[in-house]
Amino acid sequence: MKLSPLVQELIDNLKHLPGVGPKSAQRMAFHLLERNRIGATKLANSMAKAMEHIGHCRTCRTFTELEQCDICASPKRQASRLLCIVESPSDILAIEQTGEFIGRYFVLMGHLSPIDGIGPEELGLDQLQNLLSSDEFDEMILATNPTVEGEATAHFIADLAGSYDVSVTRIAHGVPVGGELGYVDGNTLSHAFSGRKKL
Amino acid sequence: MKLSPLVQELIDNLKHLPGVGPKSAQRMAFHLLERNRIGATKLANSMAKAMEHIGHCRTCRTFTELEQCDICASPKRQASRLLCIVESPSDILAIEQTGEFIGRYFVLMGHLSPIDGIGPEELGLDQLQNLLSSDEFDEMILATNPTVEGEATAHFIADLAGSYDVSVTRIAHGVPVGGELGYVDGNTLSHAFSGRKKL
Repeated sequence: MKLSPLVQELIDNLKHLPGVGPKSAQRMAFHLLERNRIGATKLANSMAKAMEHIGHCRTCRTFTELEQCDICASPKRQASRLLCIVESPSDILAIEQTGEFIGRYFVLMGHLSPIDGIGPEELGLDQLQNLLSSDEFDEMILATNPTVEGEATAHFIADLAGSYDVSVTRIAHGVPVGGELGYVDGNTLSHAFSGRKKL
Repeated sequence: MKLSPLVQELIDNLKHLPGVGPKSAQRMAFHLLERNRIGATKLANSMAKAMEHIGHCRTCRTFTELEQCDICASPKRQASRLLCIVESPSDILAIEQTGEFIGRYFVLMGHLSPIDGIGPEELGLDQLQNLLSSDEFDEMILATNPTVEGEATAHFIADLAGSYDVSVTRIAHGVPVGGELGYVDGNTLSHAFSGRKKL
């Protein structure tokens, strides 16, 4: 038996969401149709609007519907002369939640991955170089993910920054706070030792 | 830091999907914006269209954008004079996948649950009575879920059908095919024994 075409189309399109397979798509479609048509209509509208209007901040490349995002436009942030390099906009959210960082960001929207055809150009590194040459920053903090690709990307950007008058730092690797040593993997632990600090 | 309003609105609205919390909503929003704007636009369109146009089949109450669904409209199905009562449209899908059932369906869109204010009226039982009094059916198969609420609903409908000239049956409860007896719960096992058949 076939579902009616519109229902089937909705289920097929729900599979565009990450982590949603045929079974969850079906469950979502029936749930929305049965219990939350108002919510679904709102979602459909805001999704259409978002896809049409949200672009990238012209300075830091994060998602925004404005020319420049709030962080880049803030004079207080500009005065800090700090630039933090992250892989994705969700990293900005995580860092902002700590409330510790008062500088600006630059979002790579990924990491170097030659196999997937993601090179310096796709990460906007020419844009980053423009930013560095503008003499607006004293320090660039590399906060890419502590993965192989993230590390490689960090090293690549550090090399790139060598020709600019800016100090380059990398966020610390080590034992996560609140964890137990016995559960920490060896790689992290050896980083924690080699990065030890005087008390 | 606040996300830009449109991004935040998209994330908030994604939480209308069942099983999607703040973290997954954020991941979904960034994924769609970063990698699948075309898919998201299609999803938004089909969701808006579905919410506007999909209603219920006037005979069996399943979801369809037509007056009457394909199954109800099929003369072959009508000739079988069988009616299967299910709780939700996804049950129809599951039964149709077996390819065994050649009759028509009636979808309750839930089960009796006085505590949630779901009574006979919400399940469309007056509509079911109209259907039964039309003399189109010889047998009504109760295929509500094997839960407490599903059983109660089945018994209620069986009582209701007493005044019509239709035989009422319930799908068999027992040991699932392919399972191991050791893992089957006691309740199911006692149903399997009391429902034993001669070989």
